[in-house]
Amino acid sequence: MKDRIRNSMLMEKIITAEEAAELIKDGMTVATSGFTPSGYPKAVPMALAKRVREKNENIKINLITGATVGDELDGELSRAGIINKRLPYQTNKSIQESINRGDMEFVDQHLSHVAQNINYNFIEKIDIGIIEAVEITEEGYIIPSTSVGISPTIAQKAERIIVEINTSQPLELKGIHDIFTLENPPHRKPIPIIHCSDRIGTEYIPLDKNKIAGIVITDIIDNTRPLSPVKDIHKRMAEILMEFLEFEIKKDRIPKELLPLQSGVGSIANAVLAGFLDSKYENLQFYTEVVQDSIIDLIDRGKVCCASTTAITPSPEYLKRIYENISEYKKRIILRPQEVSNNPEVIRRLGVIAMNTAIEVDIYGNVNSSNVLGGNMMNGIGGSGDFARNAYISIFFTESTRKNGNISTIVPMVSHHDHTEHDVDIIITEQGIADLRGLSPKERALRIIENCTHPDYKPQIKEYFSLALKRKGGMHIPILLDKALSWHYRLDIYETMKE
Amino acid sequence: MKDRIRNSMLMEKIITAEEAAELIKDGMTVATSGFTPSGYPKAVPMALAKRVREKNENIKINLITGATVGDELDGELSRAGIINKRLPYQTNKSIQESINRGDMEFVDQHLSHVAQNINYNFIEKIDIGIIEAVEITEEGYIIPSTSVGISPTIAQKAERIIVEINTSQPLELKGIHDIFTLENPPHRKPIPIIHCSDRIGTEYIPLDKNKIAGIVITDIIDNTRPLSPVKDIHKRMAEILMEFLEFEIKKDRIPKELLPLQSGVGSIANAVLAGFLDSKYENLQFYTEVVQDSIIDLIDRGKVCCASTTAITPSPEYLKRIYENISEYKKRIILRPQEVSNNPEVIRRLGVIAMNTAIEVDIYGNVNSSNVLGGNMMNGIGGSGDFARNAYISIFFTESTRKNGNISTIVPMVSHHDHTEHDVDIIITEQGIADLRGLSPKERALRIIENCTHPDYKPQIKEYFSLALKRKGGMHIPILLDKALSWHYRLDIYETMKE
Repeated sequence: MKDRIRNSMLMEKIITAEEAAELIKDGMTVATSGFTPSGYPKAVPMALAKRVREKNENIKINLITGATVGDELDGELSRAGIINKRLPYQTNKSIQESINRGDMEFVDQHLSHVAQNINYNFIEKIDIGIIEAVEITEEGYIIPSTSVGISPTIAQKAERIIVEINTSQPLELKGIHDIFTLENPPHRKPIPIIHCSDRIGTEYIPLDKNKIAGIVITDIIDNTRPLSPVKDIHKRMAEILMEFLEFEIKKDRIPKELLPLQSGVGSIANAVLAGFLDSKYENLQFYTEVVQDSIIDLIDRGKVCCASTTAITPSPEYLKRIYENISEYKKRIILRPQEVSNNPEVIRRLGVIAMNTAIEVDIYGNVNSSNVLGGNMMNGIGGSGDFARNAYISIFFTESTRKNGNISTIVPMVSHHDHTEHDVDIIITEQGIADLRGLSPKERALRIIENCTHPDYKPQIKEYFSLALKRKGGMHIPILLDKALSWHYRLDIYETMKE
Repeated sequence: MKDRIRNSMLMEKIITAEEAAELIKDGMTVATSGFTPSGYPKAVPMALAKRVREKNENIKINLITGATVGDELDGELSRAGIINKRLPYQTNKSIQESINRGDMEFVDQHLSHVAQNINYNFIEKIDIGIIEAVEITEEGYIIPSTSVGISPTIAQKAERIIVEINTSQPLELKGIHDIFTLENPPHRKPIPIIHCSDRIGTEYIPLDKNKIAGIVITDIIDNTRPLSPVKDIHKRMAEILMEFLEFEIKKDRIPKELLPLQSGVGSIANAVLAGFLDSKYENLQFYTEVVQDSIIDLIDRGKVCCASTTAITPSPEYLKRIYENISEYKKRIILRPQEVSNNPEVIRRLGVIAMNTAIEVDIYGNVNSSNVLGGNMMNGIGGSGDFARNAYISIFFTESTRKNGNISTIVPMVSHHDHTEHDVDIIITEQGIADLRGLSPKERALRIIENCTHPDYKPQIKEYFSLALKRKGGMHIPILLDKALSWHYRLDIYETMKE
């Protein structure tokens, strides 16, 4: 353990997960490391859930993380009924059920806002922070593991800190991180990143070691998610993207070596990035919040010069691959705090091409990326708003139908708005692409209906738009107030959007 | 004229407004100076409209400006039926009628996006640029007048430039501007503003003088708008804001000397700022897009250390006051390009307190700032999104009712979404304040209903929310898909939202 805890005084702070869990009391706000289930604490939350279940305790805590964490944390605590309020993002099935049963309050936030909301004292004071680490340095500083997220802010702001040293996370991760925190206004300075590969901070998270309340040793591996196999329609979307990029370069709208890419979380995003594997593009740059399998493949193929991110989120199989050759990946990957990876300042400056996935899109170009049927929370907005609003070009992908064709993802009006017409440049479905730049709402509608809608829904959406034009054609955005949400209402009652 | 056109060769380029207007042909895209009707060209568009009317010509152009321009441009051209497409913002009655009759396409954009959309070649190539100036320097550079807007970008990107030298604009405006343009990615650098008062550019807009197609001399004054008298309910909103700021300082959430302020356009915004006149705050800083009357009053009272903006937009009376004492105001006011005044990078870095006006707000915290009844365009989103998303605190003001109480501005669901739940921290009506930070949707609804709704609508909105909870209480955001827009539907048919 000496190579994991380099300060001998701190060795005395080693405690069991159960002892650490005892520090967590009813009413506390707990903030943890972790982003898109990587680098989150595992042993302490499991011990806490176990105790609560066994003793039938009635405690409630608020839980703040960087973004998604694994089932050992979100799943265990929500099933044990311990979470009162959760923010800012989640993907766990158990926690989603709790949120949509009304058992838990969930606050959905732009991921670039989380650290500053803590720093500005806008959300609850953090009583306990739990940070997964690969090492604690001589000075008591923390070398985080596979994500950074909001850990530097937790280290600064939490009353007390529990460190989970995870021996399944290789020590060789040291050096992959670039920790830079932002001062509060009026003392904030420019973030000096002008290339994705710029390192501007330290390899460690500074921490006052007196705040360490306990160190827990564990070897539970990151419970990352396997990705669905690449579907043909996703391949089609990737092809459409490649054609689009080539066209844009020809039109002198994108430099021929491209610009830094961002890609969201999940199977579609991963499949789309796989489209770059056999492309002509070399020296790809990523300025993104997650590194999924495709980026690893692209690195292996020698196509990536730099991937700046706040988390490595490979499938279990790819995680092994990374661990086996970490020193090579370290040359290409930089892990930053999410207030830097997702910062509008850097995203807009670098000119990031943003690629995110939509739940549904409407004919006027608004995007829902968080709530089904207007209010059933899936995961949250995540970083999509940080990137879409500030991107050089903001692209959204969605399959044109879901649930065996009972849902059209192109609708008269989205049932929940995450990205407005002002933030959406390009929509890609397996049917085609709609380039919305410089178009008025009516022009957008024509293009989205024509290019992106599934043939099964085309007559129905054309009928809505024709009627809207007929009744309300004078309006800037023709909308039928009594019918705009009728497709969702039908889906809710009859389980299909089809008329 | 020698002190207005300092290069004798350029003197030869003086032409009449009619001759300049001849350069504008069917199908062209014309971009002009002007922002919140200040500093826009007047003589040439009036000459163009006159010609088209007199000769019964059938021509159409696309018109791009910084933001609002005066009736001499938007009014004249839209009444003459010349405009095919207009972007990114407008407030003129004639043009609004054209847009909402479907006679004209309007593209509503974040004001920070306009210059880069031109630079990235995302919108039409600019055939002719028309820039109002107080002076053309020896080098052929332009000293703009009362606004900067997108003029530096027009100077760079337009094929040919017409300069309107406006002798009603005092030469003493020279020195008030700070022109700094952004490179396209991947060459963009940090914007080196760390205090509102930082000057980072030149006093002039660089221009290749060979591009000057003509110089027109005019003396038509900026057609700025008078503000409505301050109403009691606006005073009440200002009081609520003052109480809020004091509370935040006490809670250690805002520094006691405050942070830079932004305030939107219009009478409510102006009235709210007037609340600072008798406040204890000194050395106020503004990082904003418009300087209206209240800021002038605050400067006169010695309460402002710096007002960074892209336009001076006083009422006619206040404009005179500024002209009479321009050298004093120049010490406090800086006019920047809108890609700098509205840039997320600087807004987030400085920690701007953003104060904007909403058309309506819903119980979950979404804001409509552009379209009445879901699609009748008022002015556009303007800069409100640039500021709200990146603010330290994002505040929205609205009167709780309009149209003699027939409209409640607090509704079950906004009929158009400009600012989502993720971007709205505080809502203030004359009824009270709802602080939404760190709240889940259901918690937000309770607070907005209780604190901000007009008593006449409180039972009705409570009934909606109760029913939503009863039927859909399990949802993260309880929404009744068949009733969410029913208030607007009722208003559309029966001219009242009242049941």
